Amino acid sequence: MKINGKHYRTIWPDNNNPKIIKIIDQRHLPHKFIIEELKTVADFTAAIKEMHVRGAGLIGATAGFAMYCAAISAPKNNFSSFIKNAAQNLIQTRPTATNLAWAVRRQLKAMTKEEDIDEKIKISFKTAQKTADEDASFCRRIGEHGLDIIKEISKRKKGEPVNILTHCNAGWLAFVDYGSATAPIYAAHNNGINVHVWVDETRPWLQGAKLTCWELAQEKVNHTLIADNTGGHLMQHNMVDMVITGTDRTTYTGDVANKIGTYLKALAAFDNNIPFYVALPSSTFDWHIKDGIKEIPIEERSGSEVNYIKGITADNKLEEICISPADSRAANFAFDVTPSRLITGLITERGVVRANKEAILNLYPEHQQ
Amino acid sequence: MKINGKHYRTIWPDNNNPKIIKIIDQRHLPHKFIIEELKTVADFTAAIKEMHVRGAGLIGATAGFAMYCAAISAPKNNFSSFIKNAAQNLIQTRPTATNLAWAVRRQLKAMTKEEDIDEKIKISFKTAQKTADEDASFCRRIGEHGLDIIKEISKRKKGEPVNILTHCNAGWLAFVDYGSATAPIYAAHNNGINVHVWVDETRPWLQGAKLTCWELAQEKVNHTLIADNTGGHLMQHNMVDMVITGTDRTTYTGDVANKIGTYLKALAAFDNNIPFYVALPSSTFDWHIKDGIKEIPIEERSGSEVNYIKGITADNKLEEICISPADSRAANFAFDVTPSRLITGLITERGVVRANKEAILNLYPEHQQ
Repeated sequence: MKINGKHYRTIWPDNNNPKIIKIIDQRHLPHKFIIEELKTVADFTAAIKEMHVRGAGLIGATAGFAMYCAAISAPKNNFSSFIKNAAQNLIQTRPTATNLAWAVRRQLKAMTKEEDIDEKIKISFKTAQKTADEDASFCRRIGEHGLDIIKEISKRKKGEPVNILTHCNAGWLAFVDYGSATAPIYAAHNNGINVHVWVDETRPWLQGAKLTCWELAQEKVNHTLIADNTGGHLMQHNMVDMVITGTDRTTYTGDVANKIGTYLKALAAFDNNIPFYVALPSSTFDWHIKDGIKEIPIEERSGSEVNYIKGITADNKLEEICISPADSRAANFAFDVTPSRLITGLITERGVVRANKEAILNLYPEHQQ
Repeated sequence: MKINGKHYRTIWPDNNNPKIIKIIDQRHLPHKFIIEELKTVADFTAAIKEMHVRGAGLIGATAGFAMYCAAISAPKNNFSSFIKNAAQNLIQTRPTATNLAWAVRRQLKAMTKEEDIDEKIKISFKTAQKTADEDASFCRRIGEHGLDIIKEISKRKKGEPVNILTHCNAGWLAFVDYGSATAPIYAAHNNGINVHVWVDETRPWLQGAKLTCWELAQEKVNHTLIADNTGGHLMQHNMVDMVITGTDRTTYTGDVANKIGTYLKALAAFDNNIPFYVALPSSTFDWHIKDGIKEIPIEERSGSEVNYIKGITADNKLEEICISPADSRAANFAFDVTPSRLITGLITERGVVRANKEAILNLYPEHQQ
């Protein structure tokens, strides 16, 4: 997608030295656009853990390149155990995200196929690039499938704006390009369909206010920022035509782990008969977990992300403020799980499917067994 | 309730000059404790509109004293029309709050009973004080009735902490004393019951983070601050035993207007079989409106309350920061309406009652007709 008119992905190898991987350090958006160079495995681990990069697909793509970085950093006499150790550390950085473990395991498998260390390094670079490219192309296809749904609503509304609510950032900043939840929105916008997006600010980290608003503004998509509390009221009053969110892990039974608060929006959509869609590439499915609420591990982050908020002052200075009594303890669960019964459909790169085991396995028969 | 060990109400006439009304300017809490003097009708209007004071009961009590201020400010030769004008301006400051119109009308009615202007002034002072005193005593009684519910849960949990989730601030800062939603919590705490409160931060204005946390800390009640997105996850995982919120207007049919986001918590409580209570003095009932969702006017405030957040920097300076792209428009609906079907019970000064017309009118037979 474009930033000030120039095309960017969220992660890419440096043109002159592909051993250096470049990312957009998302902690500074929307106030500052900073490109960071990742050179060591520690750089990658910190970038994922401290959320310089975040979002299902981008975490996966970053983990792919991190394993390539591990391969070029590993001592030749201790290659395997270095790689195994790096893989373990990476997987532990964000426990809820499936794409992370998926991308790391894909690299381990690819490298196992080669005997020679130089070949292992080569295949790990190819695999990292393939993971990133696939992510972008899957998101593009999610956009095409989601577009059909939006078209339908637009037709029914006779060209009146289609009001889409989204939570968190499942935009192109959360993937390598296009985004998952935003891909249908961008596709609709580029097809001349009148869309308007309600953007949940998404406390505590404010991915909606900081990232989704910024993305949509760059692409000139009409949008309105709202507090996370607002969606229910909008839905009661016919101001939302559909909800699209992303997901960090979806079980093969259709339960969806996504940014904390998604479940509340799904309840409100269900209560008001509003379609609730979740957009995801197949890399986000967990083919092993049956009961999302009981079994998906939910990351707990520091409470200080609730007590303290970063933003920009009137004199353009990045500043952090405390919004509560300094000694009030805060809890910070990063995700929740929306049960499949509340979900209208999953928008995948292979098409739109109902959120249940039969339908999902029918679309992905290679995971039957 | 107590601040640093000293008893305060949220509004009181100055000891030496009762024509001066004192309030706590809540915009500066929890960072600074500032007492403001209200001397003119314009002072009162600004204090309500700009949220120096807020919350159902306190808005009502402030409106009561505002009408007294209008009475002492009115020119003798134009008394009635001055008072009528002041009443109209006051009612328009916060359209959703019932207590506001209720307190103003109570004053108009009281003053009509007297012929002489000096007598009108006297009765208006008495009425303002009565409104404030009743508010405090009603809240105390709400506490007693709510205490029974908490006791019951505590007994069932064999003394394990009773986890109560609350949204916004329906604490003593929202009333003259005790609070509505917090009154049962304080009563339980003072009765030695082990309670723990999940405090929704309550964006955009952050009444939970700023006011409820501060109140609970002052009274040494165990609490944890959470993002508004969190309650659903907690409820799915058995970490909430009951919800208690306040309300700005409740229809005689049991629909509850309260701070935006209340509806989402009610949906989650209902979905997880967790009791959802709303605490209110009778002054918050609207005896005319039947369908809360269709008929209660919802205040829209400036979007800048979403884009900008105030707090305190590391060097103890009050600062305002922007959290979004500066040009992203925001919408700011201040309240939503929770339909009666999602509410377990209303805790009033006369007892706990189901949220339906029959039960409510049975408890308040004087409003049958």
